[in-house]
Amino acid sequence: MIAVKIGLCGLGTVGSGTFNVLKRNAAEINARAGADISVATVGARRDNPHCDLSGVQVTRDVFEVAADPHVDIVVELIGGTTTAKELVETAIKNGKHVVTANKALIAEFGNELAQLAEEHKVVVAYEAAVAGGIPIIRALSEGLAANKIEWLAGIINGTGNFILTEMRDKGREFEDVLQEAQALGYAEADPTFDVEGIDAAHKLVILASLAFGMPLKFDSIYTEGISKIETVDVAYAAELGYQIKHLGIARQSEVGAIELRVHPTLIPATRLIANVDGVSNAVVVKGDAVGATLYYGPGAGSEPTASAVISDIVSIAQMISLQAKAAQPLLGRAFDTLVDRSILDIEEIETAYYLRLLVDDKPGVLSQITQILSDSSISIEALIQKQPVDGQAQVPVILLTNKVFEKNMNRAITDIEALPMVSEKIIRIRVERLD
Amino acid sequence: MIAVKIGLCGLGTVGSGTFNVLKRNAAEINARAGADISVATVGARRDNPHCDLSGVQVTRDVFEVAADPHVDIVVELIGGTTTAKELVETAIKNGKHVVTANKALIAEFGNELAQLAEEHKVVVAYEAAVAGGIPIIRALSEGLAANKIEWLAGIINGTGNFILTEMRDKGREFEDVLQEAQALGYAEADPTFDVEGIDAAHKLVILASLAFGMPLKFDSIYTEGISKIETVDVAYAAELGYQIKHLGIARQSEVGAIELRVHPTLIPATRLIANVDGVSNAVVVKGDAVGATLYYGPGAGSEPTASAVISDIVSIAQMISLQAKAAQPLLGRAFDTLVDRSILDIEEIETAYYLRLLVDDKPGVLSQITQILSDSSISIEALIQKQPVDGQAQVPVILLTNKVFEKNMNRAITDIEALPMVSEKIIRIRVERLD
Repeated sequence: MIAVKIGLCGLGTVGSGTFNVLKRNAAEINARAGADISVATVGARRDNPHCDLSGVQVTRDVFEVAADPHVDIVVELIGGTTTAKELVETAIKNGKHVVTANKALIAEFGNELAQLAEEHKVVVAYEAAVAGGIPIIRALSEGLAANKIEWLAGIINGTGNFILTEMRDKGREFEDVLQEAQALGYAEADPTFDVEGIDAAHKLVILASLAFGMPLKFDSIYTEGISKIETVDVAYAAELGYQIKHLGIARQSEVGAIELRVHPTLIPATRLIANVDGVSNAVVVKGDAVGATLYYGPGAGSEPTASAVISDIVSIAQMISLQAKAAQPLLGRAFDTLVDRSILDIEEIETAYYLRLLVDDKPGVLSQITQILSDSSISIEALIQKQPVDGQAQVPVILLTNKVFEKNMNRAITDIEALPMVSEKIIRIRVERLD
Repeated sequence: MIAVKIGLCGLGTVGSGTFNVLKRNAAEINARAGADISVATVGARRDNPHCDLSGVQVTRDVFEVAADPHVDIVVELIGGTTTAKELVETAIKNGKHVVTANKALIAEFGNELAQLAEEHKVVVAYEAAVAGGIPIIRALSEGLAANKIEWLAGIINGTGNFILTEMRDKGREFEDVLQEAQALGYAEADPTFDVEGIDAAHKLVILASLAFGMPLKFDSIYTEGISKIETVDVAYAAELGYQIKHLGIARQSEVGAIELRVHPTLIPATRLIANVDGVSNAVVVKGDAVGATLYYGPGAGSEPTASAVISDIVSIAQMISLQAKAAQPLLGRAFDTLVDRSILDIEEIETAYYLRLLVDDKPGVLSQITQILSDSSISIEALIQKQPVDGQAQVPVILLTNKVFEKNMNRAITDIEALPMVSEKIIRIRVERLD
């Protein structure tokens, strides 16, 4: 069997998992790869007590790994987009294949890395960058290769899904669950990346590029987090037969423009993805030939992410052992065949809406509101009006609307909020049927 | 771009879907493959009015396709295991790569085909043979390549799942739903393959080989259908918080022996796979590194199956365009590295049980039954005793037991059925927690 040498950069959560799983499952991994895979050198700022590095060359300088003539594949698990970018570029220029779990690096700099990798005829693989252990990159670029992808929608941030699940199951408030998530290690001390949707945006941009054959367009994505979701809305959604999930959605419109958006979304509780709870991830992909398929699993964690990293190592090792003369391109097709697509402004997107209003408990209020909606061609699919809570002069009204262009909804909401009997800002959450 | 020529054998449901999707999505498919894929020749007993064959060479003799020097990939979609086997063997011997959707062919003759393919350095790919459009073969052999697979469990027959879903949702009886399934085209005129689990057994054997790195062992699988499932048991299961699904289960025991079984199974209603309804398929795979992942989608149908067939064509075309010098082996690793594993006899398998007994409505009955169970070290996890229906002297008793070796359960059931106050054969269904 051909020997394939790994240079492992980073020995944190994912790096140590990768090192240990490679060692523990070496027999299976080598049999599947048709190659003898071993870690030749590790580059890390410090050792990790969970990893037995005896017999492995260790350096504190990751650039030594990228320069090591014995290394076939550089595995970048140091994170960030400064040193990591330089490291990956150096490795590529040195003719090394690269495996990375770095979603930010691929989402923000994947276009230039794709071209550099093609120039040097090496593979840059990143299965672990999206949805942790779920082999979704492979599914999109290979398993569904026959399809025009119509849309995809994913729960691609486990922290957010954990928080929303707890809010629903236990009626807890966002801030309260966030603190628990931080204590459990699910959320960072600065939770912005997770709860404001930036992490999900990085992942969605990558999925959309693979699905629609376009360059990565991280700057064009619309991103809205879950930090403003209130427990009462989670409960009303359930009453209406819906779940609130933080989804990344990419869709191809009839005319070829692309929707690219991350936001809280009501989805029917009967959908399989609505039943994906806790820190798990899941992605639904709708192809024109296959229909809807769903991929579910752990979206993070040491060994689940290592599983994805190693799947890329195995694929590259197979390619080496098959003596392939060229390399699969980073975005699934040659960079110069990617087609730039216009991304729809959020105002031009059409969705149904969940609205919650606090209105005076007086006759005629509802008719004025429904009149404004009707004037904007917005029809009401469901309505709940609650009894006033003792001592309060206002009552909550919950509406589900039909599909409407966001700009029309914005106008209607401005008009309704201007009514004297509407006392607070209207809560609004987009609704997707995913059928 | 390199031209890759397809010889398409069979123009039935899947063949026509493959032909049409290849044509409709040619631009996407070629970009992803990095090759110019076209159907050079079609071998079919008759034309198909859904396919425009103009410009395509057509023959009534599929062996002409396998001999055509212009053909790179022979796509076998004629079904059966006689002509199909001969066709695939001929194609391999002629140095053609093969793509097939034929689960029976792979399950029953895959071992010899694997060796023949290695000898001739060609690929035999069969993503479409298991779970239709779901890319589960790829997930197992590539996406999860880092893992020791602990177990997998799948709803891999859509007809059976449709029948069980209707029985649950509408309280209909098996025979009644089966007739509807036949009218809808979900079930064959002779439904044996679907409802008695043979189709699922073919698929499970393939998944187990890939998961555990062993030769295909179709003769060793335990198979039990759903034709004896009664609607009342579906309802009692729901009352206990379970769903009855027809599962294919493969599991690696601690000592390395393999469980390989297809049978109706109670699973907790909270599991994601318990919510997979209708004709859909889903497979859960538990790996030691990644944990549990799930793959869901359409398990049959013209274009969903074509989607899987074409994914294999694309992979082979990529390999051709990368000028690979060797071929991926049929069972994911070189045939001589597969390890034969002993398959546990069903009597040696340990599961929990659902039991339904019809007993005389008299004092002391339950104590005698529980005594027999207790003597066999079987403890009761849940029990429902129903009131007697008017005019009947017997009452149903439903039990959920702990995990027990099947041979012990058999003995206990024989003893209980011998009691004079137990009037009918005991209904028993295995229970799996899938956690």
